[in-house]
Amino acid sequence: RFFYAPSFGIYGGVAGLYDFGPTGTALQQNLISMWRQHFVIEEDMLEVDCSIMTPAEVLKTSGHVEKFADWMCKDTKNGEIFRADHLVEAVLEARLEGDALARKAAGEKVAEAATPAADDKKAKKNKKKGGPVVATKLDDAVAEELRSILAQIDNYDGKGLGELITRFDIRNPSTGNEVTAPVEFNLMFESSIGPTGQLKGYLRPETAQGQFLNFSRLLEFNNQKMPFASAMVGRSFRNEISPRSGLLRVREFTMAEIEHFVDPLDKNHPRFDEVKDVEVRLLPGTVQLAGKTEPITITIGEAVAQGIIDNKTLGYFVGRIYLFMMAIGINHDLLRFRQHLQNEMAHYACDCWDAEIKTSYGWIECVGCADRSAYDLTVHANKTKEKLCVRETLPEPRVYDKLVCETNKKVFGPTLKKAAKPVQTYLETLPEAELAKINEQLLADGLAKITLTGTIADGEHTITKDMVDISTKTFTEHVREYTPNVIEPSFGIGRILYSLIEHSFSVRADDEQRAVLSFKPAVAPFKCLILPLSNHASFEQPLRDIARRLRSNGVPARVDDAASASIGRRYARNDELGTPFAITVDFQTAQDQTVTLRERDTTKQIRGSTDEIIVLVKDLVSGSTTWDDVLGKYELVDTATAADEE
Amino acid sequence: RFFYAPSFGIYGGVAGLYDFGPTGTALQQNLISMWRQHFVIEEDMLEVDCSIMTPAEVLKTSGHVEKFADWMCKDTKNGEIFRADHLVEAVLEARLEGDALARKAAGEKVAEAATPAADDKKAKKNKKKGGPVVATKLDDAVAEELRSILAQIDNYDGKGLGELITRFDIRNPSTGNEVTAPVEFNLMFESSIGPTGQLKGYLRPETAQGQFLNFSRLLEFNNQKMPFASAMVGRSFRNEISPRSGLLRVREFTMAEIEHFVDPLDKNHPRFDEVKDVEVRLLPGTVQLAGKTEPITITIGEAVAQGIIDNKTLGYFVGRIYLFMMAIGINHDLLRFRQHLQNEMAHYACDCWDAEIKTSYGWIECVGCADRSAYDLTVHANKTKEKLCVRETLPEPRVYDKLVCETNKKVFGPTLKKAAKPVQTYLETLPEAELAKINEQLLADGLAKITLTGTIADGEHTITKDMVDISTKTFTEHVREYTPNVIEPSFGIGRILYSLIEHSFSVRADDEQRAVLSFKPAVAPFKCLILPLSNHASFEQPLRDIARRLRSNGVPARVDDAASASIGRRYARNDELGTPFAITVDFQTAQDQTVTLRERDTTKQIRGSTDEIIVLVKDLVSGSTTWDDVLGKYELVDTATAADEE
Repeated sequence: RFFYAPSFGIYGGVAGLYDFGPTGTALQQNLISMWRQHFVIEEDMLEVDCSIMTPAEVLKTSGHVEKFADWMCKDTKNGEIFRADHLVEAVLEARLEGDALARKAAGEKVAEAATPAADDKKAKKNKKKGGPVVATKLDDAVAEELRSILAQIDNYDGKGLGELITRFDIRNPSTGNEVTAPVEFNLMFESSIGPTGQLKGYLRPETAQGQFLNFSRLLEFNNQKMPFASAMVGRSFRNEISPRSGLLRVREFTMAEIEHFVDPLDKNHPRFDEVKDVEVRLLPGTVQLAGKTEPITITIGEAVAQGIIDNKTLGYFVGRIYLFMMAIGINHDLLRFRQHLQNEMAHYACDCWDAEIKTSYGWIECVGCADRSAYDLTVHANKTKEKLCVRETLPEPRVYDKLVCETNKKVFGPTLKKAAKPVQTYLETLPEAELAKINEQLLADGLAKITLTGTIADGEHTITKDMVDISTKTFTEHVREYTPNVIEPSFGIGRILYSLIEHSFSVRADDEQRAVLSFKPAVAPFKCLILPLSNHASFEQPLRDIARRLRSNGVPARVDDAASASIGRRYARNDELGTPFAITVDFQTAQDQTVTLRERDTTKQIRGSTDEIIVLVKDLVSGSTTWDDVLGKYELVDTATAADEE
Repeated sequence: RFFYAPSFGIYGGVAGLYDFGPTGTALQQNLISMWRQHFVIEEDMLEVDCSIMTPAEVLKTSGHVEKFADWMCKDTKNGEIFRADHLVEAVLEARLEGDALARKAAGEKVAEAATPAADDKKAKKNKKKGGPVVATKLDDAVAEELRSILAQIDNYDGKGLGELITRFDIRNPSTGNEVTAPVEFNLMFESSIGPTGQLKGYLRPETAQGQFLNFSRLLEFNNQKMPFASAMVGRSFRNEISPRSGLLRVREFTMAEIEHFVDPLDKNHPRFDEVKDVEVRLLPGTVQLAGKTEPITITIGEAVAQGIIDNKTLGYFVGRIYLFMMAIGINHDLLRFRQHLQNEMAHYACDCWDAEIKTSYGWIECVGCADRSAYDLTVHANKTKEKLCVRETLPEPRVYDKLVCETNKKVFGPTLKKAAKPVQTYLETLPEAELAKINEQLLADGLAKITLTGTIADGEHTITKDMVDISTKTFTEHVREYTPNVIEPSFGIGRILYSLIEHSFSVRADDEQRAVLSFKPAVAPFKCLILPLSNHASFEQPLRDIARRLRSNGVPARVDDAASASIGRRYARNDELGTPFAITVDFQTAQDQTVTLRERDTTKQIRGSTDEIIVLVKDLVSGSTTWDDVLGKYELVDTATAADEE
């Protein structure tokens, strides 16, 4: 039904690039609107919209040029390319599957969990990619080890993957050829900016950098108040080695990212109490490292109190992400938050919780909620020499004592000559304890020796007592300057959209050929279907009027007047698009200006005047009334006589 | 006020790349929402969302690899790069300016129009770029010729620009060095897709191609019904030679494009009557070629009837674009539609009308409304061998006679042997008139000679009477197959946004230091400001409650509780952001739960209960009530005592 399809299909398509059709685009747009309402508007975030094309220097500084890479290996003979972790995963899973088959054949009882997620699409694809499953029994210890490796596969780096490839003799499943040791492949698309070709650029791999670079402008816009959050919705690009799994691993995708800037000494959140009683399912790192996958159910308040989630701001966003998922219609039982393992974490993150949604491909990371600490602001500030920090007037001035070194200009300069400046800098920036030692030597011996490196006057220099005055002075500070930490909830809109389609799908109890997408009205691509009972000419004018009135009220409405299809067939095909309401014009309409209104999930119908039904649909879509309320106020139409659902 | 700013500013910025701040982003988002409502929802268009990264083959076929280029020339000594048309324009304008100065100095009367648009920013920048203006009188004939060249500067190609450069000795204004002859520079950003580096890709220069490639899917989604329109909102990229003029010429921009697919034999539009009385200002090609710039004011209906606008569909969209511009708040007097000149037109277009908006940079193209005929669908279909066409069951079968050739298999094959197949194909595909000639020869001489080229049996072959039967047969066609034409309204969102900011800007009559952006409520970035009269502790709770209630109702609201600024100052700085409404919490609020509501343009205030004011703001923003209505129902607050506008 054209939710999405491979881009450039008539040219054969390109792996990892998809186009959204009318239903997919509207669905995506509705998810983004709800996201904006839930986060940007309700939390008063500062939304920005930054450039995709990014000069190389920015992404060198952020670490992406060096570290934003996957491990790739090649078939040594035909040059076929694999993502190393996917290859290892696929081959080992195929072997475990073969083991289970052999054990079953031998009459052994095999636990379903022995091959993890045995019935999901991801596993099936892996198995296919891992080569034909051959019933070969493994030693108990080997099988156990393979399961343990697979549970932590995200924790292996290139070296580790290379060792697994050698140790388990992992080869290209389709040729049997050996593969090369894994090498890094940078995932950014490269281009050049301007006519000279000399300014290298990359397509951004995340929207975050644009937000960091605008930090000072945003802080000023926010009247210097902390904490605050910026947000951005937009395209990002990752030149995946071998994209697969439909919308779940793509080269171009829409993300929605929040950067919440917070005082590192105070990671509380003013609205934490609003989410503290929200119950979520967590899968902490400790549980995963023990080889387990059973989540714990706990309130956000408890999880932060017990230190499972590091701080209240991180906890607040885990709670808000959960509430967003419930608002759009994700199944509560198929949502969990998994903590990243150490080696799995992006290079900038110090802690990360993924919101994972279960689909037919297994558990899919749909939102990453990372604590990026002060990493990004610090590296950009160091590189550009621009301050990216907060200056806060202290409520009480801070008074403190400190040992400092002052030089006696008359002696210091003439004695040290061109070494004077570097030696002075050295002494002024020395940690207090070191300075105290030098002071002790001066008091004891009258002189002290220091060694400079990396200056214009490297080597040993002698300081005498008359050259300096080292003593404790009292300082008063009125302003505190700090680099904020960043908590970053980052949403993959395409993955959420795909999961939502799966969770919304069902078939009618009485006819499994009839599929329904039970989207909430706010999420549904089209809100209302308008259709004539038959192609009688008198239906045309009311049909057009109703369509025009709904649309001018901002309700996306489609007309289905295909004379060739029965009305039941037309209801059914719009159920497949997830359209929640349908207005039918029939012979009674001409007599008394009434129409029927049908709801998708109940398939129940009521009748009312055209005017009131239009208002009703508007209110149902905006959420100011519900179908249950409507059923309480109107009599049901007997659909058997109304020729519905034939 | 951070509407927009150069991207990567702390890294020194990159020409032609801009970031939108919180106000700019919200403004852009509101324009896009209104665009979706005006076009996609109200006209039931099929919105899609396609990939930005595009394989080279697609853009080779579309003609962009060969033709999507600007003319560039280089300083022969220092290598500085210029866009050739901009260089010529700048230098010639500087000379005309110098001429005007010299004539003024000599006491001659100089018409203001002698240097066109002499006081706008574009001209000023050009002059700067065209070198210092030196008072040098030109011959009358030369000055006249320069003016005529400038009026048609968009009509020169590379060769023409090269001739102008030689003839008028145009050099790099800042060095005086000669420049090279113009060479083409392709404006697409190039990259490569996948780990092998072998699949070349470009960032799309327009969203249109994705819509064309999905034509068959969209036609099917629309139940094979014609005409219909697809639409897309998204980023596109143009690697401009030397971007300038702020948001008006950028390397990355958001566009909103419509592709309206229409039967080439019937370019009427079902809703044409709705716009036929809309009056617009048109600048047809004929007027421009006569060296004139005065538009004609005419209704859409008249313009189509007189053939100024080619057809009703093109006219319909010109009218709808006009209505959209009025809806968002563009100044009627500063909007015109200009027809493209022949050489200025994009390679795919056969007619094009630009909606141009006057700003301080001169007249700016903000919407292009092109008739792309069947160009794109035809080239993609030819390249991919996929049909991109409409099959329509004819209301009446078409019955017609045609001269055809049938072969007599018994004689034909054995006589011609391996030449039989190519000769048969030749005869079957021959135009009717040619076939008639052969038939005449056969009837007269009993034989005819034909010559094949490009086949496996090239050369002369002889056909005899007994080998073929050439006669008129009657055919009945039930289906008509055709490639639709495309009418494409293409909106540059950034340019419209910039123009709207200029048109909305004014200063208070009583104080020209106080700027106001008079955005309509639907367009305004933030809808409501909430502020306390002072920083009294009792104001905090009502402030927060009002903010939360407005936001949960979908109304973007900002709090300004900066204690350091007077209330008048705080009103003023939100007037600069274009925030239309302000709710003030004061000492009376604690007593009777009332607050004041101020409107930005009138600066008038009313007072009401918190509950009713919140509903009022919601209704004012959604447009279901107006400030005039409100003023009719409430008494004005005496702002002199309320300490406003100090």
